[in-house]
Amino acid sequence: MTFADWNILHQKTHSGLKISLKNYCESWRMNVELHNIRDFEVVPEECTDYIGKYVRSIQYKADSERATEECLVYLSTSCNLKKDGRDAWVFDIDDTLLSTIPYYKNNLYGGNKLNVSDLEDWMSKGKSPALEYSLQLFNDLKSRGIQIILISTRREYLRSVTIDNLVNVGYHGWAGLILRDSANELVSVAKYKSDARKQLIKDGYRIWGIVGDQYSSFEESPSCTRGFKLPNPMYYVA
Amino acid sequence: MTFADWNILHQKTHSGLKISLKNYCESWRMNVELHNIRDFEVVPEECTDYIGKYVRSIQYKADSERATEECLVYLSTSCNLKKDGRDAWVFDIDDTLLSTIPYYKNNLYGGNKLNVSDLEDWMSKGKSPALEYSLQLFNDLKSRGIQIILISTRREYLRSVTIDNLVNVGYHGWAGLILRDSANELVSVAKYKSDARKQLIKDGYRIWGIVGDQYSSFEESPSCTRGFKLPNPMYYVA
Repeated sequence: MTFADWNILHQKTHSGLKISLKNYCESWRMNVELHNIRDFEVVPEECTDYIGKYVRSIQYKADSERATEECLVYLSTSCNLKKDGRDAWVFDIDDTLLSTIPYYKNNLYGGNKLNVSDLEDWMSKGKSPALEYSLQLFNDLKSRGIQIILISTRREYLRSVTIDNLVNVGYHGWAGLILRDSANELVSVAKYKSDARKQLIKDGYRIWGIVGDQYSSFEESPSCTRGFKLPNPMYYVA
Repeated sequence: MTFADWNILHQKTHSGLKISLKNYCESWRMNVELHNIRDFEVVPEECTDYIGKYVRSIQYKADSERATEECLVYLSTSCNLKKDGRDAWVFDIDDTLLSTIPYYKNNLYGGNKLNVSDLEDWMSKGKSPALEYSLQLFNDLKSRGIQIILISTRREYLRSVTIDNLVNVGYHGWAGLILRDSANELVSVAKYKSDARKQLIKDGYRIWGIVGDQYSSFEESPSCTRGFKLPNPMYYVA
């Protein structure tokens, strides 16, 4: 539904709600984060300016930084680390450790339909900047003796550029980097990621938390693992 | 962490993020909705004004209305109703069908710690207004032949005032109203609600969706039932 349609509809309905374009786009973004709006392919055309402003704003940083701080609150209030080298934490890569905003900046902040080979070309340049708050959390967890495992939907052929990019912006010392190979490209992202976590648990890891920007990073989690979702109104991974 | 502490911390950290009080309160609210901030007992003192403004704003209405619209999108794209009188939809009551904002207005919009008997006194007056978008959804679902079941943490002794309040503001024709009795007051809200849903499924209902303002309304859901969370930054039910 477009913004115009929304306003026409609501003049007709009982609530008669008249909203501004900003109200409309903000409610779109909020409902993406609430996981009420799913499977969208593009940011609504009339909201690309709004979303672009948001992801460049201090609010986006504050929202994200707060999410990473809650990881530490959770760790210090709810977790009894065994410190036997098997305490683990899982991170996504894109828009969790590294930002793809420079790429999406040239693609209407999610307003253009995803072109995978175009995005992979950009990734292979290895120029993704770090998300500073995630780098801080990464280092904090590492200093507590927690094993850090990266599980990403990036494909295997991008392994060496991905490692270079991570190291160049300050990430190092992770315990595992799991990328997608041709076998698991056939299943959903949620299943690929939960299968990877199941294997880690089989290998003896206790996964205390997962940080990602997509609900598909947490779904089918073992129930004692808690997810922390970073905001991402730019795209949806099913 | 207070707003002042947050700013001091972030001047010291690598990111050096300086934010306004509005940024701080908005990131608090966003992370409540993301389910990253859990188990809070009160809205942070410095954010009660901000939260009060939000729940009285057109943005709160737009955010909520969008959530209820997505229920209809989901129904028409993902559900094959059997229309045998066993298609069902579950609603919470407080801050889903009826608003408690008039009560919280007198309690610093969540800034005062919950006083249950005080809240129940207010409920027993039966003066909760309807949330218009929820009433529209309720009526729309009913007109499609879907059975509507209300599952609330309100206690049994409030049954007759609750029914009166619902009917007075326009809700009627539900198929079930499940309230908390002394037996299930001992378990968590999530378990009480999921047990109630399991019983409904045993009784032959197919629950297509749940509308609520708390994550505890959806947890332990059967996997083919999808939850839709309305915004509620005022309080947290574990």
